[in-house]
Amino acid sequence: MPFVKGGITAPSGFKGAAAHCGIKKAKLDLALIFSEVPSQAAGVFTVNKIVAAPVKLDRKKIKKGKFKAIIVNAGNANACTGKKGLEDAKETARFTALALGIKAEEILVSSTGIIGKNLPMERLKIGISSLMHRLSKENHQSVAEAIMTTDSFLKESAWQTTIAGRRIKIGGVAKGAGMICPNMATMLCFLTTDANISKKLLRKALREAVDNSFNAITIDGDQSTNDMVIILANGLAHNKKIEKENKDFLKFKEGLNLVAQFLAGKIVEDGEGATKFIEIMVKGASNGREAEKAARAIARSNLVKTSFFGADPNWGRIMAALGSSGIKLKEEKIDIYYGDRPVVKKGKAFDFSPARIYRLLKNRKISILVNLGIGKGEKKILTTDLSPEYIKINAGYFHPVRKANTEIT
Amino acid sequence: MPFVKGGITAPSGFKGAAAHCGIKKAKLDLALIFSEVPSQAAGVFTVNKIVAAPVKLDRKKIKKGKFKAIIVNAGNANACTGKKGLEDAKETARFTALALGIKAEEILVSSTGIIGKNLPMERLKIGISSLMHRLSKENHQSVAEAIMTTDSFLKESAWQTTIAGRRIKIGGVAKGAGMICPNMATMLCFLTTDANISKKLLRKALREAVDNSFNAITIDGDQSTNDMVIILANGLAHNKKIEKENKDFLKFKEGLNLVAQFLAGKIVEDGEGATKFIEIMVKGASNGREAEKAARAIARSNLVKTSFFGADPNWGRIMAALGSSGIKLKEEKIDIYYGDRPVVKKGKAFDFSPARIYRLLKNRKISILVNLGIGKGEKKILTTDLSPEYIKINAGYFHPVRKANTEIT
Repeated sequence: MPFVKGGITAPSGFKGAAAHCGIKKAKLDLALIFSEVPSQAAGVFTVNKIVAAPVKLDRKKIKKGKFKAIIVNAGNANACTGKKGLEDAKETARFTALALGIKAEEILVSSTGIIGKNLPMERLKIGISSLMHRLSKENHQSVAEAIMTTDSFLKESAWQTTIAGRRIKIGGVAKGAGMICPNMATMLCFLTTDANISKKLLRKALREAVDNSFNAITIDGDQSTNDMVIILANGLAHNKKIEKENKDFLKFKEGLNLVAQFLAGKIVEDGEGATKFIEIMVKGASNGREAEKAARAIARSNLVKTSFFGADPNWGRIMAALGSSGIKLKEEKIDIYYGDRPVVKKGKAFDFSPARIYRLLKNRKISILVNLGIGKGEKKILTTDLSPEYIKINAGYFHPVRKANTEIT
Repeated sequence: MPFVKGGITAPSGFKGAAAHCGIKKAKLDLALIFSEVPSQAAGVFTVNKIVAAPVKLDRKKIKKGKFKAIIVNAGNANACTGKKGLEDAKETARFTALALGIKAEEILVSSTGIIGKNLPMERLKIGISSLMHRLSKENHQSVAEAIMTTDSFLKESAWQTTIAGRRIKIGGVAKGAGMICPNMATMLCFLTTDANISKKLLRKALREAVDNSFNAITIDGDQSTNDMVIILANGLAHNKKIEKENKDFLKFKEGLNLVAQFLAGKIVEDGEGATKFIEIMVKGASNGREAEKAARAIARSNLVKTSFFGADPNWGRIMAALGSSGIKLKEEKIDIYYGDRPVVKKGKAFDFSPARIYRLLKNRKISILVNLGIGKGEKKILTTDLSPEYIKINAGYFHPVRKANTEIT
C-alpha cells in the first residue's frame, strides 16, 4: 500500500501552516511549507514569456544552495507588476526568513491569482507573522486549501516505500482548475520528500515526473504566467544517498511519478466547469512527438470538447482536428474508438449503434483511442469537456461592483 | 454607392435556384448558381489534411477549363466517405450537367454539414431536377438560405463599379458560423462577377481578398474539411479584358476585397452563440507574421473570450496569451487599450476606471489594441466572445433520439 496519509507533511521533518491575510475574502490565502533542515530543491517553471515576479526570483535562486521553506499566496499573481513586483517577492522572502529565524536565500516564493495588482504587503506581513505559531504536521490540508483559487476541492497525496532498508516518503499538494495546458499552465504543485538524493538526480526525476503528469494534461489550452512545480528533499529518511541511476533511483522516480500523476489527474477532474474526465490516446503516429501533437489538437478543439459535454459521438470533429493539426496522416488508415467501440475504421464511418455510444459518452470518464496506423508513436493526454459552467466561472472573475467591495478578488 | 442589391445574381448572366431535397428537415438544403455563358473560375480551399470529396474534386477541376455552375448541398459534408463519397460528388456533377444540358466538366460541387455520412443520392437527384425550373435572377436569397447550417441569418452582398466605361458587378454569398478559424474553416463562399478578367489575375485577386477577409477571422480556432471560396467570372460586362496589373485590376480587386470583407464580417457577427464582435489589432510586432501570431493567440484563448462575454477587463489573460504565443516580446514595452482607453502601459497595470471599461465592454462591438512596441508589424483579426450558447449549439448537433427521426441532422 504505497499511498499514505499526510500530504506534504508526511515525509519526516516537514511542517505546514496556513492563514487568511485578506487577499481573498474570508478564505485561507497564505501558506507556508517548512523543512526543519535545509533541503535540496528542484523546480520546473512556466514557459510563458511573461512570467510573474516569484517565477523570476525562484528560477534563479533554485539553481544553487539549499532551502528550508516555500511561502505561497493565492488571490494575487504578482505578475505584470514590474520592478515593484520583484521587490515585493524579495521582501516576502526576507520577511518570512526574519519570522522563521533563517536566511532569505533559504526561501522560495510562489503566487497565484489575478494579474497586474501589487501585493498588499502590509497585510501579507501580518499574515506571515501569524503563520509562525501554526506550523505543524497536522496542517497539510489547510496548506492545500490556502493555495486554491477556482479549485472546488483540495488536492494532496503522499506515498511511501523502502529504499535500502529505510522508509522514505514523498508528499505533494497542488492547485489547478482553469488554464491547464501544455507545460502546466496556471498550476502550482509543491512536493516534499525525506529521501536523501543528489540535486542532479532530484532535478532529473522531477523533470521526468512533470513530463508524465502535469505536462500531459490540458483543459483550455491557455498557459499562465505563474506555474511552478517545486520539490524539496531534506534527506531525513537517512537512506544511503541516491547519487547514481541505480534501482534506488528507479524506486524514487516511480514514487514521484505516482504522486505527480495522482495530482495531475485530480487537476483534470477539477477542470473549470468540467463534467467529464477524458483520456485521449493516440497510437500509430509516425513518432511520439506527432502523437502528442495529434492528441493535443483533439484535446484542445472546442468543438470536440463541446461534443463530449453533449455526449455526442460526433467523431467528424476528431477527424477535422486531426486534419488541421499539421501531423502526417493518411485518411484511409485512421481508426477511432470511443471506449472499446469502433466509430471509424480505415477513415470511414463504422456502422455503430448511436444509442450505445451515447450511453457510453454519458459516463463521467471517457476514453478515446485514435490509431493513425502509420507508425509506432503514441501519447496519452488527459483533458475535460467544455461546459457552460466553464464560461460562468471565467466570465465574471473580475467585476467593478465586486471590485468596489474587495480590493482584489 | 458601390454596394448594390441582388447578391450573387447581381452580375449579368447569373441565376440562382434553391430546393429542399430532404437532407435537412423541412429546410432549403440544395442550391444552384448558374452562369449563362462559360466563366473563368478560381478557388481557395481548406488546408485541413482531411478534406471532403467535393474539395478533392474541385481543387483539381478548377485548374483548367471554364465553368457554368456550382451545385451546393447543406446538411451533409460528404467528408470521410471514402471512394463512394468521391463517386457521389462526381455523380452529383454529372446529373446536374445532364439536367442543365451542359458538360459535367463545367460544374463545381460543394457540400457542408455532418461528416461521415454518404449523400442520399436518390433524394439529391430529385432535388437537382426540381432546381431547373426555378433558376432565376430573383433567387439569390434562397441560395443564401439553402447553404446555411447553424447560421442564424443569410449572408450576401453585391458591389458595382465602372471599369473602362463598362459597369461591372461582383456578387457574393457565404455561410459561416462555428469553426471559423485561420484559413476559413467550415465556411463556404461563392462569388460571381461579370467582369472580363484573365484566369491568372482572377486567381491573384481572389487569393488576396481571402487573405484580407476570411483568413483574418477566427471564432473557435477549429478548421473544417469542407471550406471553399470560389469565384466565377463570366465576362458579360464586356469590359476590355483585365490582363495586366493596371488600374482596372486595382479597381476590381478593391471591389472583391469589399465584398469578401463584408461577408467575413457577417460570418463573425453570426459566430455560434456570439454576443460580441471583437476586433483585435496588434501593432509594434517585429514583423507582420509575428503580429498575426499574437492576434490569433489572443483571439483563440478561451479565457480571453469568456472575459469578453462577461464584459470583464481582465487584461492579464491577454498578457498570458501573448506570453505563450511564442512571439518575440518585451514585457516592459507592451501597451494594451480597450477601445481608446489604456489598461496596460509599459507592461504594467494602468490605473483605469473599472466602471468605465466595464461600460465599454458591455457594447456589442469591442476593439482591442495591443502595441508590442518593438517593431512595425501589424495585423487585425476579427473574432467573437465565447458564450454558453456556443456550447448549447455545439453540444447537441447529433443525438440518438433526433437521429431516429431524421436520417441526417
